[in-house]
Amino acid sequence: MRSTTGVSYCAVCKSSHTGVMQILFCLLYSYASNTKLETEIRVTGAYDEYSSCSGSSRAAGMNGNGPGNLVDPLEDPVPGLGTYEDFNTIDWVREKSKDRDRHREITNKSRQSTVALLHSVSDAFSGWLLMLLVGLMSGALAGGIDIAAHWLTDMKDGVCLIGFWFNHEHCCWTSNETTFQERDRCPQWQSWAELITGTSEGAFAYIVNYVMYIFWALLFSFLAVILVRAFAPYACGSGIPEIKTILSGFIIRGYLGKWTLIIKTITLVLAVSSGLSLGKEGPLVHVACCCANILCHLFTKYRKNEAKRREVLSAAAAVGVSVAFGAPIGGVLFSLEEVSYYFPLKTLWRSFFAALVAAFTLRSINPFGNSRLVLFYVEFHAPWHLVELGPFILLGIFGGLWGALFIRANIAWCRRRKSTRLGHYPVIEVLVVAALTAVIAYPNSYTRMSGAELISELFNDCSLLDSSQLCGYKQPIDYPTLCLIRKPVCPIRNHSVYYPSRFPSGLFIPSMAVGAIAGRLLGVGMEQLAYYNHDWFIFKGWCSPGADCITPGLYAMVGAAACLGGVTRMTVSLVVHHVRADWRLEYIVPLMAATMTSKWVADAFGREGIYEAHIRLNGYPFLEPKEEFEHSSLAVDVMRPRRSDPALAVLTQEGMTVGEVEALVESTHYSGFPVVVSQESQRLVGFVLRRDLLISIDNARKRQEGVVSASQVVFTEHAPAQAAEAPPPLRLRGIMDLSPFTVTDHTPMDITVDIFRKLGLRQCLVTHNGRLLGIITKKDILKHMAQIANRDPDSILFN
Amino acid sequence: MRSTTGVSYCAVCKSSHTGVMQILFCLLYSYASNTKLETEIRVTGAYDEYSSCSGSSRAAGMNGNGPGNLVDPLEDPVPGLGTYEDFNTIDWVREKSKDRDRHREITNKSRQSTVALLHSVSDAFSGWLLMLLVGLMSGALAGGIDIAAHWLTDMKDGVCLIGFWFNHEHCCWTSNETTFQERDRCPQWQSWAELITGTSEGAFAYIVNYVMYIFWALLFSFLAVILVRAFAPYACGSGIPEIKTILSGFIIRGYLGKWTLIIKTITLVLAVSSGLSLGKEGPLVHVACCCANILCHLFTKYRKNEAKRREVLSAAAAVGVSVAFGAPIGGVLFSLEEVSYYFPLKTLWRSFFAALVAAFTLRSINPFGNSRLVLFYVEFHAPWHLVELGPFILLGIFGGLWGALFIRANIAWCRRRKSTRLGHYPVIEVLVVAALTAVIAYPNSYTRMSGAELISELFNDCSLLDSSQLCGYKQPIDYPTLCLIRKPVCPIRNHSVYYPSRFPSGLFIPSMAVGAIAGRLLGVGMEQLAYYNHDWFIFKGWCSPGADCITPGLYAMVGAAACLGGVTRMTVSLVVHHVRADWRLEYIVPLMAATMTSKWVADAFGREGIYEAHIRLNGYPFLEPKEEFEHSSLAVDVMRPRRSDPALAVLTQEGMTVGEVEALVESTHYSGFPVVVSQESQRLVGFVLRRDLLISIDNARKRQEGVVSASQVVFTEHAPAQAAEAPPPLRLRGIMDLSPFTVTDHTPMDITVDIFRKLGLRQCLVTHNGRLLGIITKKDILKHMAQIANRDPDSILFN
Repeated sequence: MRSTTGVSYCAVCKSSHTGVMQILFCLLYSYASNTKLETEIRVTGAYDEYSSCSGSSRAAGMNGNGPGNLVDPLEDPVPGLGTYEDFNTIDWVREKSKDRDRHREITNKSRQSTVALLHSVSDAFSGWLLMLLVGLMSGALAGGIDIAAHWLTDMKDGVCLIGFWFNHEHCCWTSNETTFQERDRCPQWQSWAELITGTSEGAFAYIVNYVMYIFWALLFSFLAVILVRAFAPYACGSGIPEIKTILSGFIIRGYLGKWTLIIKTITLVLAVSSGLSLGKEGPLVHVACCCANILCHLFTKYRKNEAKRREVLSAAAAVGVSVAFGAPIGGVLFSLEEVSYYFPLKTLWRSFFAALVAAFTLRSINPFGNSRLVLFYVEFHAPWHLVELGPFILLGIFGGLWGALFIRANIAWCRRRKSTRLGHYPVIEVLVVAALTAVIAYPNSYTRMSGAELISELFNDCSLLDSSQLCGYKQPIDYPTLCLIRKPVCPIRNHSVYYPSRFPSGLFIPSMAVGAIAGRLLGVGMEQLAYYNHDWFIFKGWCSPGADCITPGLYAMVGAAACLGGVTRMTVSLVVHHVRADWRLEYIVPLMAATMTSKWVADAFGREGIYEAHIRLNGYPFLEPKEEFEHSSLAVDVMRPRRSDPALAVLTQEGMTVGEVEALVESTHYSGFPVVVSQESQRLVGFVLRRDLLISIDNARKRQEGVVSASQVVFTEHAPAQAAEAPPPLRLRGIMDLSPFTVTDHTPMDITVDIFRKLGLRQCLVTHNGRLLGIITKKDILKHMAQIANRDPDSILFN
Repeated sequence: MRSTTGVSYCAVCKSSHTGVMQILFCLLYSYASNTKLETEIRVTGAYDEYSSCSGSSRAAGMNGNGPGNLVDPLEDPVPGLGTYEDFNTIDWVREKSKDRDRHREITNKSRQSTVALLHSVSDAFSGWLLMLLVGLMSGALAGGIDIAAHWLTDMKDGVCLIGFWFNHEHCCWTSNETTFQERDRCPQWQSWAELITGTSEGAFAYIVNYVMYIFWALLFSFLAVILVRAFAPYACGSGIPEIKTILSGFIIRGYLGKWTLIIKTITLVLAVSSGLSLGKEGPLVHVACCCANILCHLFTKYRKNEAKRREVLSAAAAVGVSVAFGAPIGGVLFSLEEVSYYFPLKTLWRSFFAALVAAFTLRSINPFGNSRLVLFYVEFHAPWHLVELGPFILLGIFGGLWGALFIRANIAWCRRRKSTRLGHYPVIEVLVVAALTAVIAYPNSYTRMSGAELISELFNDCSLLDSSQLCGYKQPIDYPTLCLIRKPVCPIRNHSVYYPSRFPSGLFIPSMAVGAIAGRLLGVGMEQLAYYNHDWFIFKGWCSPGADCITPGLYAMVGAAACLGGVTRMTVSLVVHHVRADWRLEYIVPLMAATMTSKWVADAFGREGIYEAHIRLNGYPFLEPKEEFEHSSLAVDVMRPRRSDPALAVLTQEGMTVGEVEALVESTHYSGFPVVVSQESQRLVGFVLRRDLLISIDNARKRQEGVVSASQVVFTEHAPAQAAEAPPPLRLRGIMDLSPFTVTDHTPMDITVDIFRKLGLRQCLVTHNGRLLGIITKKDILKHMAQIANRDPDSILFN
């Protein structure tokens, strides 16, 4: 396992897809992975595994009779026992059983004294308290990120004379001007040209501003790159594929740690401010999960239990989306539909609570009004007509095609970076892209604004907000010549052309922007069509001459949902997400028609969404819960050992010496060994994890008198009689899982896969007529699935 | 099993809790259960099991090597094989595996011809088509019920002269009067007094109207009773506990059949019109599920697969709530949170679709405006203050206490009815209650209106809707004397007093009404307090003199949510449900605070919601997915045979004759038998279901030459050598489940229960060191849980 650590860094970093952030943060791993940082983590790993054993004795709790009773649930006598190595999969069943034991213990004790009763009550409410803290912290961080990004973004234009720490809006608050236009030009705020040349007019001033804009953009992106590179390579990308993998039970130490949190928060601000059109939505999910993971350390219940902690992380994912979009219910559904693996009802309710707390915290921190909390608040006033379902479905098809294309292109690009020298110069690459972006974006106000602002503008209804330049075309001019005459409409065109190529892997906001632009274009087209041809049979009866029959904003919203749906394959959460803007049932139908079409069209090209595609690209051991196992193979076809392999490495419940066991463990790399009655009968007794075995033997050799290589290892309940002069036996029944999962060799693999998914297993033993035959691990299943799909089975890297 | 059929009827009927409907419909079972109907069902059951085997031969599909391959998934060679008896639990794993086999077959065939490809595509979309049909049919039925109930309700007051089939509103549409008051008194509509006595004024006219009102109420309830009694005893009650049980995998034949649907629809109209304040919301869920079950017969995929059908039923539950409340998302969350057992993501999306279709169908059918689609559409205009969280939490406590009390009283009442003579005269009981209700309700307009109308009125904001009589108290009169002076406020009091006693088991609407009344009272109290004491420190700073600081409608809404939450223990769906009325985040907080408090308070008195309590009362085999198994017992403590019992009845894979097998089956009542290698080794080979075994032997005796009692029964792959003169062996490997689930004797029961829940098992075999030791069934687990909780373990009636 140790040998793959380098690879894992690489994989984690390659998985990012938050636009240029990818290029920006992620190619860095190649620098970081062979240096100090990795070594540090290796040392830590080794510390976790061995040196932590030295401080304690093999005390109580080693004679339990189930995996739950392996160790005393309240205090761990041999540290390290029952924990996991980095890049390994947890055993959900064991973890949940451990938590139930702990809970039972507390409940039993609570009847004895008032203190214990209070402890029991506080334990019951600790989950809620933790949720409250996660909501508060995530909301506060999101608010801070907003404020800082706002300030730094304005910094690219100019500076506030009464204090450089004020942003443009804040700086002009004290101004006496009353209209919005006037207020924007308050004397306290000076553009760089005014400050340097003394004037804001003329070509030279324009060039000075232009250059300063590029300078700041480059500085911000450079800082972001350097910070990630130096302190937290895990802070790269959106993090959603990794969080999905972690939630499914994988362990990536440090991925949700404090360094990742700090660096991710700072660099997110820098990256957003640099003018690269990145969604901060994905990264905010990562930030919220980091908060949750760190706060889990405050509560024993969550610190010591990987399964419980994952429940909290599921809720944190909802919190992340909630603060990103101001949609608590959308966030919960996102977590349920897209990210989570194990989502009990209790988590549903807690997620909702945390998401709400976070949304409120964000709002009370951010004084800039409703800019974020209700990101895309729109109200439409005209109803839509059944005829318009046609264009809506067209948008769905577009979204699906675009999503499929985007995923293919993104994966192909990432693959190429892995295999060519393209990925070796991330800093230069990022700076080049940042410079190009700044040069292209500056001259046009629509490319300069953030993706979220652009989408917001596109969603708006022209009849209400005539102040928007987007509505300027509403003159009696025929449409085709419009772009030539009135400039404001054209930027839309520009966007739709270079958005996808400039940000080949942007996600939430960029995808929505593409869809919104396409939708708005179609909507404006339809509007003009209806305006000039209201006597056509399709418009007749519902579109009177001169009326606004079509709402282009609705088309933009539908297009945005379709494109995001094509990329992520989300469905319900998407619709709910958008619909909260206007709760009228009518607008659900266009959204649903478009997202459904989009999903079907995209699925026809490949069933994986962008997150699943990246998980597969990185070789994480992730069993997709949505996809059915379609092949008719049996457990016997998938299990190891294969026919040609040597026999399964097993321990016998008695008769082996410590030396023999150590030799067997050394000679193999399996992470666990079945224990059988005898080599002849092969009747299964239990299952021992490699890590537990090594820790226990090591501990016994150090602490327990007389345990030498010739000592017998005994897994039975009662030690067998042995010669008087023999060394004392090493009894290891306590670390054996007495209830390993078994299936028969004839079990169809679809059922086996179902069991693995539903119970969250790491491995399962295969028997035939009561005799042990082999073992199936999660990795074996993933390899088998890859083989069926004609993919490289060795792309699955971890256990 | 057969002997419990009578009991089951009883249990089903006793489980109702839709107000007086319970008394009305449900005591009937005692008449029905010993008569014609039950006999018919028994005959049908027998037919299913035996006679259906005669029409076919033991053809292909009997030599598969997994439960999935048991029979050819597309055509069933031995009818009855792989099906279930009434009042039995399905095997989820087997059903889902069967569906995957079917799907694989279709996919493989689709590569061969265009017709097969089309079949494959139509198969893939049949789920969506079915959802569309379910939505359309349920929406249409709900619309029909609305219209009919509206008409019959008006019938109690009078009749339309231009056509008796017009309701009051419809009748007066053609009237020339312009104001609402005038329109209500159009000449075409005549009250019974006008028709009979010629005048609508005076005491005599009032008495005539009164008598007619009571007459119609009695007639409607009598008709409802008679119809249910004669045609469909299953149509009684709300049906939600039974639907929960069915969704968890239980089989109750006819519970979702066409007779139940027809009778339930008709009697629901009659019961609602009779003036009994019943929620039609629960019954609408049952109606939607009946629609779904009937429509499933159109598609092979769903007709033949119990697991797939349950996915559709889960969606139908969402549809039912969607049409009841006009809340598609609330409906989906209700199905997810409260009703469903197995709810994959695919079902989430499809439920949402069906719920939307149904809501739209309902709206296009029901021309009476927004009366139902957005049942409680409210907009509040004043914000709430943090201080008000206090009263909101008080409402939550009230809701929790009320809910706990309600459940206790309801269960105690139902138990008493079971044990005393109280339940023997349902018709008389219903008529008495209906008459009492009518007598009490008629004089007061607030008791005469339906629960939904009342709630709607209570939710309203006075500052906007001053036309409501509820706002009449807004005069400078001090509050305590208010009730004495102005009549309109007082009805609220009346309601809150006799609602709970009159309808001891009403659910959705009655619970909400109680909460809304309590909330409104508190709100009005707070409003008056703030109005007259705006200088108190708690009101200071946010409540200026003379302003409307408090919104009593919001209090009513919060109270309604709290009471409903206390009774059902729903949380998220409740909040979402109410919040759709006004999508502003602010109003989520009071609702959440109240429902959380309510749930916690109610949980302190007992963890079960009303549905779970009724499921337990009726002894259904339902493993509650929400509650954790807290005890530390092991599988060996729960399995049968116990230490004192005779040994487990097993079959050996060879060496037993047909006669011996038949004798073994006859002498026991187990629904399945493990197959072992030999009696000595007890190594497990597979598991055979009693039903399949009987059908197969019966079939073989009839169809297969030479199979006599002395024939060997062989479960091995290759028939053993035997003497030449011996009769040919009966090979039964095909009906054996080669992958039975096993756990070891040391497996903690919490893990075992988890496996049962997650995989939906019927039974699980227990082994020790590879040897078969015993068996655990769902019933064993439920009995064990009942024992732990000191309840009667024999209350679990079915397998």
